[in-house]
Amino acid sequence: MTSRDGYSWTKADGLRPGIPSIGVIQPPSNIESPDAEFDVIVVGAGYAGLTAARDTSVAGLKVLLLEARDRIGGRSWSSNIEGYPYEMGGTWVYWGQATIWREIARYGMQDELESSYDFSRGINKFLLASTEGTQSFTHDEEDALMQTCLSKLFNVDGKDGRDALPMPHSAHLTPSDRRYDNMSVADRLVEIQDDLTPNERLCLEGFVLLCSGATLATTSFYEMLHWWALSGYTYEGCINHLVRFKFRGGQSSFAVRFFGEALASGNLSYAFSEPVAKVDNGARVRVTTRSGKTFTAKKMISAVPLNVLNDVAFDPPLQEGKAAAAKTGHVNQTIKVHAEIRDRDLRSFTGISYPHNGLIYGFGDGETPAGNTHVVAFGGDHKHFHPEDDINRTISEFHGFTPMHVERVVFHNWSRDEFAKGAWFFSAPGLLASHFEELRARQGNVFFASSDWASGWRSFIDGAIEEGTRAAVSPHRKRDIGG
Amino acid sequence: MTSRDGYSWTKADGLRPGIPSIGVIQPPSNIESPDAEFDVIVVGAGYAGLTAARDTSVAGLKVLLLEARDRIGGRSWSSNIEGYPYEMGGTWVYWGQATIWREIARYGMQDELESSYDFSRGINKFLLASTEGTQSFTHDEEDALMQTCLSKLFNVDGKDGRDALPMPHSAHLTPSDRRYDNMSVADRLVEIQDDLTPNERLCLEGFVLLCSGATLATTSFYEMLHWWALSGYTYEGCINHLVRFKFRGGQSSFAVRFFGEALASGNLSYAFSEPVAKVDNGARVRVTTRSGKTFTAKKMISAVPLNVLNDVAFDPPLQEGKAAAAKTGHVNQTIKVHAEIRDRDLRSFTGISYPHNGLIYGFGDGETPAGNTHVVAFGGDHKHFHPEDDINRTISEFHGFTPMHVERVVFHNWSRDEFAKGAWFFSAPGLLASHFEELRARQGNVFFASSDWASGWRSFIDGAIEEGTRAAVSPHRKRDIGG
Repeated sequence: MTSRDGYSWTKADGLRPGIPSIGVIQPPSNIESPDAEFDVIVVGAGYAGLTAARDTSVAGLKVLLLEARDRIGGRSWSSNIEGYPYEMGGTWVYWGQATIWREIARYGMQDELESSYDFSRGINKFLLASTEGTQSFTHDEEDALMQTCLSKLFNVDGKDGRDALPMPHSAHLTPSDRRYDNMSVADRLVEIQDDLTPNERLCLEGFVLLCSGATLATTSFYEMLHWWALSGYTYEGCINHLVRFKFRGGQSSFAVRFFGEALASGNLSYAFSEPVAKVDNGARVRVTTRSGKTFTAKKMISAVPLNVLNDVAFDPPLQEGKAAAAKTGHVNQTIKVHAEIRDRDLRSFTGISYPHNGLIYGFGDGETPAGNTHVVAFGGDHKHFHPEDDINRTISEFHGFTPMHVERVVFHNWSRDEFAKGAWFFSAPGLLASHFEELRARQGNVFFASSDWASGWRSFIDGAIEEGTRAAVSPHRKRDIGG
Repeated sequence: MTSRDGYSWTKADGLRPGIPSIGVIQPPSNIESPDAEFDVIVVGAGYAGLTAARDTSVAGLKVLLLEARDRIGGRSWSSNIEGYPYEMGGTWVYWGQATIWREIARYGMQDELESSYDFSRGINKFLLASTEGTQSFTHDEEDALMQTCLSKLFNVDGKDGRDALPMPHSAHLTPSDRRYDNMSVADRLVEIQDDLTPNERLCLEGFVLLCSGATLATTSFYEMLHWWALSGYTYEGCINHLVRFKFRGGQSSFAVRFFGEALASGNLSYAFSEPVAKVDNGARVRVTTRSGKTFTAKKMISAVPLNVLNDVAFDPPLQEGKAAAAKTGHVNQTIKVHAEIRDRDLRSFTGISYPHNGLIYGFGDGETPAGNTHVVAFGGDHKHFHPEDDINRTISEFHGFTPMHVERVVFHNWSRDEFAKGAWFFSAPGLLASHFEELRARQGNVFFASSDWASGWRSFIDGAIEEGTRAAVSPHRKRDIGG
C-alpha cells in the first residue's frame, strides 16, 4: 500500500508525493457500530496510541482508535522501496531503552536488528567539512574527538554530568534540572568556549544540532544533558542508544505487531484518515472528527503530539499550562533525507558539514539491493529548507559532505506535516521547567500520552511506549472506568 | 506477616527461623471452585510466574497460581525488620535492564529507588584483604583496579569483548558463544595470568565469584562475558547494572504490585504453600499438589527453577535435554548475609576478602533506623558454609573484611532451600552450549518460564519478567488456547 505521506525522487520519475509502507492499514475502518459507547477512544496511532490501544483492548475493553493519517506509526514509519526500508522518522532502538526493548523481546524480535554502520570496507573515514575546507579522520579519531568535546559540554560537576543528573528516569524535575533547562546550549558554550579547539567546537555543535533539530540558542541545555545521562554519560553510550541498531525490516515491521495484537483481541475498532476536530470532555467523552462523525466513550487517551495539540478543540478547554506549552511548542524542525548513491566506498563514511551546509550530519546507513550505498543525512532549524521545494538543492546538500552520485532521494517533511508540525520533541529553554508536570496531567476523562512528555526516553519511540503504557494502566482498571 | 523462610539472629534473641515480609499472602488461598477448568495454571510465584499470572489474568483468562512457599517473589524477597528492608535474594535494578524497568515505569516507581552506596562520610575505602594482609584503596583506585583487571579478562578481541559478544540479547548462541561457554574462567585465567598483577588477580577472582557463587573452574567464561556485555563492557556499567540501585521499600514492595494487579482483574485464583508434585501434560494439563489436590487447565506455565525442575514428576517425562540440564543444574551456591553493625564509619566501605575468607565480597548497603550501618556480604561455593550452622563463624566471616560490631544477622540459605537449591542461575562450562534452546522450548501444553533461561538478563529479576512475558504471550491468544 502507498501512503499519502513522504516523497521520493529519481531522475527517471522526478519528485513524487506518497511512498509505500506496510504501515498503511486496509480497510481504513472496521467500525461496525458507530453509535456504540466505547470504553476508551484512543486518538493517534503513533507508538503511544498503538500501545494504549493494544494494552486496553487486550485487557478486555472496547476500544476505538482514531488516526488522522492513512497509516500507523506517527512520527516513526518506514517505506519499502524496491525491497529496501527507508526510515522516515524514528529509527534506532537499543536494549538500554527499557520500554521499547521489552516490546522487542516480547515479540521475539531481538534477532531482527542490524547495525547502521559498516566500517569493514570503503573509505572508512570521518569527514569534517567546514568553511575552512574538509578534514579527514579515522573513526577512532572521530570517537575520541566526540568524547572529548561532549565531555567538556556536560562536565558541569567534575563527573561528566553523573552528579548533575543522576536519575534520568525520574518523573520529576529537580531544582537543578530546572536551572539547566532555563539555560541554552549557546549559554553553556559561552562558559566553555576557551576550552574548545576549533574542531571540538564544530563537532560539538554539529552533534547537538543533530539531536535537537533546532539552533544552539533554542536548544535546552537540560534536555541535551538528559539525553547524555540516559545514554550513560559517554559518547559510546550515545552512539549505541541513539543511532546504531535498527530493524532489518524497518520500523513499520515493528509497529504492525502492536496493531495486529490489538486487532486479534477482538476488542479494537478503528478508523484511519479521520482527523479529530473536537473533544467534549464531560461525564462521557464525545469525539467529533473533521468529517463530522461523532463517537462516545467513558474515557479518552489523547496521543496527539504537542505541536498540534491546540489544533483539536477541547471543551472545556485544555488546562492553561497544557495550552500554553502547546502554543510555545517544541523546537525540533529536523530535516531527515535519504539518498541512494552509486558510490560504494561511502558505505563507511560519517560526516559533519557545518556551519555552512543545510545537511549537518550524515553517514552510510545501509546497502540497497542494487548494491548502492544508502546515506542518511540530517539538517534542522539552523539552516532550514524544505527538501521537496528544490530537489537539486537537496542533492547539493549531500555534496556538502563529499561528492557523491545521488540516484534516489526519499524523505518525509515533518515541518510541513499538519499532524506533526515538527520532528521528535526537543525543548527550547524553559519549556520543561515551566510545563513538564502539566503536560503529563490528566484532565477530566482524558489522559494525555505522548513521547513529547515521557519521563525517560522523551522524544524517542521508547518514550512513546512508556506513555502509552502509563495511559493504559489507568483506564483498564474496571473500577476506574465504572467511576 | 512472617514467612517460614529466612533466619535472623541477635544476641538477645539468638537464631530464629522465619522473618517478616509483606510478600506473605493471606489468606493463603482464594480458590472457590477447585473443580473448575482453568485457562492457565501458573506454577511458581517468583517474578516469572507473577508476570505470567498477571498478564494472562489481565488479558481475561481464568488463571490459577500455585506456589510452594507462603509468599510471592521466589528468589527475590525482602524482610522488613524494625522498619528496615533486608534483601534476601535478588535486589538491584537499573534502567539498563529493559523488562524490569518497563514495569517500574508502568507502576510509577521510578522515584522509589536509592543507591546502595554512600561515599559521603566514614572511612570511604576499598579494603582488599588477602592472606598477605589488608591493603586500603580509595574508591577511585578501586574503580581503576577493577576496570583494568576486568578489561584484561574480557579482552579476547582487542575491543574488551565488544566484537566477541556484540548482541547480548540474542535468543540464540553463536558458535563463538558456545566456544566460550565450554571454557571456564579458570581456563581463561591461564591465558592471561602473566598479564595480571597480584592485586588485579585478587580483585578479578573476587568479582567473578561474587557473580557466579561458584568456583573459578565451574564458572562458564561465556556467562561471565555475557554479564559484562549486558552491562556495556565496562566496570562502571557493571556497578550500575548489578549492585547500585534498590527499592527504598524492598523488593517485596515491587512484587506485591504484580500480584495485586492480577488479583484486581478478578480472574486470578491462587493457593500458597501448595508445592506441585505431578503434572499430567495431556490434551488438558492436570496438576497434583503434594497435599493431593488436583487442578486442570488448558495450558500450564511452569515457573519452576532449573535446580528443582526434576523434583516435579512430569508425565510424559520432561524432554531429554531439559531433564539432563536440570540434572546437571546450575552452580550458584551464593551465601548472602546481612549484618547490622554499630560501626557508622563503615557505611562507605567496600571490600574483598579472598581467597581465605568464607565471605568474599562485602560493602555498606544502608543505614538502619537505629543509625547503625547495614553491611551485605557474599560468599559461595569457593569456601561454602551454612550461615545458620554456626552463627559465631558467620559473624567472624564479616571480620574477614575489617573488625566490626555485629548486632544483627539476617539471611536466607538458598542452598538448603528445597524450592531453589541454589541462588540465581549461573552455568558451569557447557550447560548453555548444550541445552540453552532446549530449556526454552515448550512441551505439549506446558510452557517453561524462568530467569534461568532468559535470553537477556538471565539470572536477574529482569530475566524472570522477560520469561513470564514470553510465556504469557502465547497462552493469552484465544485461538491458541482453543486449539
